[in-house]
Amino acid sequence: MAIMVGRSDGAPHFALRSFRVDAGGHTPRHSHDYEHEVYVVDGSGTVLLQGEERPIGSGDVIYVEADSEHQFRAGSDGLRFLCVVPVDRNCGGPTPGS
Amino acid sequence: MAIMVGRSDGAPHFALRSFRVDAGGHTPRHSHDYEHEVYVVDGSGTVLLQGEERPIGSGDVIYVEADSEHQFRAGSDGLRFLCVVPVDRNCGGPTPGS
Repeated sequence: MAIMVGRSDGAPHFALRSFRVDAGGHTPRHSHDYEHEVYVVDGSGTVLLQGEERPIGSGDVIYVEADSEHQFRAGSDGLRFLCVVPVDRNCGGPTPGS
Repeated sequence: MAIMVGRSDGAPHFALRSFRVDAGGHTPRHSHDYEHEVYVVDGSGTVLLQGEERPIGSGDVIYVEADSEHQFRAGSDGLRFLCVVPVDRNCGGPTPGS
C-alpha cells in the first residue's frame, strides 16, 4: 500500500492510497468505523461485500460503508486499486494508513 | 463529469468523481475553498498549479490545495481523471458536484 496523498501532505479530509494485491492474494476480511471509496485501476478479482462475493475489474468503483465487512481478492492477473479513506475516523483519532 | 460515489450514496466525507476532457479542451481556471486529490486514468495533458504549467499523464497524482488556482488541459489524446472532493466545503455548505 502506498499513500499517494495523505495527512503528511496536509490533506485535511481524505487520503488517496494505492494497493497492489498479487495474483491469488487477498486483503484482510474486516470492518472498521470509516468508509472506503475504491477504484479498480488494473487486473480483476472479487470483493466480499454485504455477505456476497462479486467480480470486479478495471474501471469498477466500489463503495464500502463504515462498519461493513469487506475483503478484496485478486484473480490470476493480480489487482491494483485506489482506496480513499477519511483522515479522521468516525469515532475519533487518525485513520490508519491515511 | 460523473459522480461515481457521493452524497446521494450516503458518502459522509468525500465524493469520487470522473472527468473526461476532450483533446485540446480544458477545465475552468479557478480556485475554491476545498481541495482536490486527482488521479490521471488515461491520456495526457498539463495542469496549471502554483502558477506553473506541468505535464501530466496516466498514473500521475495531483494534490490541489484549497484556494489554489488550477486548470487541467488535455493533450491530443484527451484526458481522463478521477477527482476526489470533500462533500462539505471548508467554509460551510455542500461542495458543488459532490
